[in-house]
Amino acid sequence: MKEYTFLDKINDPSDVKKLSEEQLEVLAEEIRTELIDTVSQTGGHLASNLGVVELTLALHRVFDSPNDQIVWDVGHQVYTHKLLTGRYKDFHTLRTENGISGFSRPYESKHDIFYSGHSSTSISSAFGLSSAKTLLNDKHHVIAVIGDGALTGGLAYEALNNAGRSKDRLIVILNDNEMSISQNVGSMARHLAVIRSKPGYYRLKFGVEKVLKAIPIVGVRLSNILFNLKSKAKDFIYGSTVFEDMGFRYMGPIDGHDIKVLSEALESAKLTKRPVLLHINTIKGKGYDFAEKDPSHFHGISKFDINTGEPLSSGTNFSAEFGDYICKLAEDDGRICAITAAMALGTGLDDFSKKYKERFFDVGIAEEHAVTFASGLAKNGMIPVFVVYSTFLQRCYDQMIHDVAMQRLKIVIAIDRAGFVGEDGESHQGLFDVAMLSSVPGITIFSPSTYYGLKNVLDEAFYNVPGVCVVRYPRGSEHVLEEKYKPKSIDFDLFGDDNAKIAIVTYGRIFANACEAADILADEQNISVKILKLNKIHPISGEAYRSVLNCEHVFFFEEGIKNGGVAERFALHLLENNYKGSYNITAIDDQFVKHASVNSLLKKYKLDSRGMADKICGSVRKFEQQNQA
Amino acid sequence: MKEYTFLDKINDPSDVKKLSEEQLEVLAEEIRTELIDTVSQTGGHLASNLGVVELTLALHRVFDSPNDQIVWDVGHQVYTHKLLTGRYKDFHTLRTENGISGFSRPYESKHDIFYSGHSSTSISSAFGLSSAKTLLNDKHHVIAVIGDGALTGGLAYEALNNAGRSKDRLIVILNDNEMSISQNVGSMARHLAVIRSKPGYYRLKFGVEKVLKAIPIVGVRLSNILFNLKSKAKDFIYGSTVFEDMGFRYMGPIDGHDIKVLSEALESAKLTKRPVLLHINTIKGKGYDFAEKDPSHFHGISKFDINTGEPLSSGTNFSAEFGDYICKLAEDDGRICAITAAMALGTGLDDFSKKYKERFFDVGIAEEHAVTFASGLAKNGMIPVFVVYSTFLQRCYDQMIHDVAMQRLKIVIAIDRAGFVGEDGESHQGLFDVAMLSSVPGITIFSPSTYYGLKNVLDEAFYNVPGVCVVRYPRGSEHVLEEKYKPKSIDFDLFGDDNAKIAIVTYGRIFANACEAADILADEQNISVKILKLNKIHPISGEAYRSVLNCEHVFFFEEGIKNGGVAERFALHLLENNYKGSYNITAIDDQFVKHASVNSLLKKYKLDSRGMADKICGSVRKFEQQNQA
Repeated sequence: MKEYTFLDKINDPSDVKKLSEEQLEVLAEEIRTELIDTVSQTGGHLASNLGVVELTLALHRVFDSPNDQIVWDVGHQVYTHKLLTGRYKDFHTLRTENGISGFSRPYESKHDIFYSGHSSTSISSAFGLSSAKTLLNDKHHVIAVIGDGALTGGLAYEALNNAGRSKDRLIVILNDNEMSISQNVGSMARHLAVIRSKPGYYRLKFGVEKVLKAIPIVGVRLSNILFNLKSKAKDFIYGSTVFEDMGFRYMGPIDGHDIKVLSEALESAKLTKRPVLLHINTIKGKGYDFAEKDPSHFHGISKFDINTGEPLSSGTNFSAEFGDYICKLAEDDGRICAITAAMALGTGLDDFSKKYKERFFDVGIAEEHAVTFASGLAKNGMIPVFVVYSTFLQRCYDQMIHDVAMQRLKIVIAIDRAGFVGEDGESHQGLFDVAMLSSVPGITIFSPSTYYGLKNVLDEAFYNVPGVCVVRYPRGSEHVLEEKYKPKSIDFDLFGDDNAKIAIVTYGRIFANACEAADILADEQNISVKILKLNKIHPISGEAYRSVLNCEHVFFFEEGIKNGGVAERFALHLLENNYKGSYNITAIDDQFVKHASVNSLLKKYKLDSRGMADKICGSVRKFEQQNQA
Repeated sequence: MKEYTFLDKINDPSDVKKLSEEQLEVLAEEIRTELIDTVSQTGGHLASNLGVVELTLALHRVFDSPNDQIVWDVGHQVYTHKLLTGRYKDFHTLRTENGISGFSRPYESKHDIFYSGHSSTSISSAFGLSSAKTLLNDKHHVIAVIGDGALTGGLAYEALNNAGRSKDRLIVILNDNEMSISQNVGSMARHLAVIRSKPGYYRLKFGVEKVLKAIPIVGVRLSNILFNLKSKAKDFIYGSTVFEDMGFRYMGPIDGHDIKVLSEALESAKLTKRPVLLHINTIKGKGYDFAEKDPSHFHGISKFDINTGEPLSSGTNFSAEFGDYICKLAEDDGRICAITAAMALGTGLDDFSKKYKERFFDVGIAEEHAVTFASGLAKNGMIPVFVVYSTFLQRCYDQMIHDVAMQRLKIVIAIDRAGFVGEDGESHQGLFDVAMLSSVPGITIFSPSTYYGLKNVLDEAFYNVPGVCVVRYPRGSEHVLEEKYKPKSIDFDLFGDDNAKIAIVTYGRIFANACEAADILADEQNISVKILKLNKIHPISGEAYRSVLNCEHVFFFEEGIKNGGVAERFALHLLENNYKGSYNITAIDDQFVKHASVNSLLKKYKLDSRGMADKICGSVRKFEQQNQA
């Protein structure tokens, strides 16, 4: 651990309040050093955190957390907040198992108000907090900090619209760093740019007022015209940002790296008797050259070399393989369009966005719109693919039903980060998509295990499946399988001893673990199993479940939530077809999964090869004993 | 069928184009007569349809549908559109089984572009259509018609934000009737009111330009100040509506009941080379006094007496019973807050909104925000209940997971219109909520059958269940049950012959049908059954499924989607516990359900008493024959 002048003495926000502005500036530099050092070793969100160092300091200087409640949108910009609220000593454990989370997590600190990880929620939840405070006659403030990227999400707008008419002590800080994760393409971004280009916004207001006040001294004709204009023009000029239209008092834009200016603005916001929107300009990646120059790359990053900014590991992965293949398909088929919700880089669409600019649509952090927009493209003959992380697709359940499935339209949903994502934790695990989507009428879901399998089912998804087709694949790289495990059929494959009385059923990435588990069982326990590997996990073909009907034991391993998952549906098929053996599911049962490496999570939830083998061996031996007794 | 001068001769939009403005005005009156007559007999959406008669005429006059594509938001404002696109002769069958739908439905006509029923989707899907047209170099227009109520939905904003930077031939018509279903409480509504209050909007712009042009003739000092202001002020003044901020060319507001003015504006919009937002003012319920005076009441209405405006049926229902009871609870408990997404009337919250004004929150048509907002209220000690139709809760899957369940917060979701809703059809059936919610960790779901049961579980939901608790109940009134069927336990109840080898398992409204089915089976077939009635449908208690483990046949009847439903989960419990009998599910299997009366749908899907009895009898007899053979 480094020696710092101030940082290692900050145990609580009250310690921040004791420092002078000059000392706070030194502290800001110390924080930046700590952020860069730690994230280079743990991976994490760097650029956004470097951007809010001064803001966080000013917030904890002016407000009294947690009596005043600070709600951080997306929740990955809280590193400085963590350092100032008693978590400095544990900061080196960032994003590691049993270490501190990379996001806002209430179980860690009373200063973390909400679990957070998805975008655009902060104003909604903050308005809920402030409404309760108003009802309870609690005079403390609630502050939502939201980036310009998150402002493209409809939830943020719904909340602004709803909160604007209240009299709550609610302050929304728009942290405008001129970009969301990918380049922001909405008109709101342009509107912000217009506002930013008017550093004299306040001065202009003032100037207009002066002019209007000066009117009586001017000749009568102009005076009359201007007099009539005066009230109307004032309305327009004062109501000139979208935020004022939405009922907020607008302040800004101000320099988000100037602690003094920030503190003054926050003090001023505190005195206002209605909701305030404070617009601050910050630089994403501030203080680390590589991050300032390429903030998208340093948005979420794995371990890197501080001196070069280069990642310490590289190599291909499912996202990149998907990106390559979709470019290949699009080259031959002008109907293919790709849609991202501000995640072009993360989803491997970077190449596509350059090669097929006119067929590439970044809709902002607006997953609902992405799906409904896709329905329009499909209706007029395009074949859209929406590429999205599993956890963010959760926003689109209604759109999948109402705007796509009900229309019987042909669209493809490519779900990246399906299954455990690891270090991002509870709010990012891709464990719900299968349960959520299975209830959508007419949908088809594929879950390949390897790059080869991915390309195989993509061909099928685009050209042979009617209606909505989903292809889901995990974060990271494939587990290379022996040639004999190469998929032979689009629907499902059977491996191992065909006459075995024990069957493993599984899909996706953990098929590789099932193969290893089969080897372990054979080698160590002389237990012979067959493996039913589902490629198409919904609907399940009759042939697939019939292939295990004669078994005595069926073990289903699922890297997803149990309730509503494939294993549950598989049970119904077995029961309806008079299966008489035992059935055992290993899946995520009714809980959220904390951060840890993917391998560690697979082990913890008994979805690694050893866990699978132990589970099967234990159950079978127990069964044998019971039968002997 | 009435004799009309023009209406009965309109077979196609081309016939509209042949009429003069005077003739169109007569046609408008004829349409109004037809709308009022028909809806008084069929029930349906009246007020909104009366409001868009002239708009629809103008649209079909100026544009060439379906080459130009008209997308109607919510899709219940399409009655005039249906009358003008070949469906006049069938219009009397509105909302009846095998008759025409009350919403936009592509299977009915090439002029209905999308299935529609949920709010705020039109701009998204229209922008998808226009993007495809741009890619295909198709010069036709896409027109989205959206009400001011629907504009409170975040999806509409996401789409405006995304579309504003395009160069597509996209026209958004904002049909501003100064209200959504309930009173609109967002600041956007206020912003629209400000715009409306400036009938001289265009004139003002013109006036300012004149003034600015006149500047050089004024004294030097003022001239200099104004000169500096000129460009900036112009930006502000021209960018003065939120829609211009969002990149649209704004036109309006204009009179939405003047066909001539509308036609001119549409022609002008057609010539603009970028997205246009045309703001029109209409009167909801226009032309029918009762509807003009109380448009909320005439939004969605059952059959009524034309001369008095009074509904032909009345009596209490689940919504009203819920509304009464929640008022009672709130009287004793100041923490209880009620939230609606613009549905205070429909959900029975009218009384609550008056009695507990400060604890009542109408958030606009913004279901996502409603849930996230509730999380904030709960975090600060309130007990919020969000009251929402089943079909609209589909919008909140992510918010339920990310903002509520993950936070382990105590909120209640009251789901109205759970199960078949009948005449509103595909887009409104409440068949997905159970499947959707079951995967949410830690959630509890109740589905009572009667008013008594509803109140019973509400007490439980508010005070005895930790975390998120859902209470779902159907549209309409209860089926009064014999005293012996009164619920005894919160979790589940067993009725009938305890030793019976045949079990019916069910929940919710159709429990009444199961009771009748048991009587039919006993009386007609001498078949004895037990009935397991689940009150708490998730999680299912072990005692509940153990109560049927010894049966030879278990029949599960579920008024909901099969995939992910309770019956499927019940199968897993049986299989895991070595149930050896047969299992049979009757539910909605992987399909959307068209409009028809609830009773007719129950019959069609074999969820009425006769259907249940036949199913059971058939299966059991078949099984007996197989065993004898």
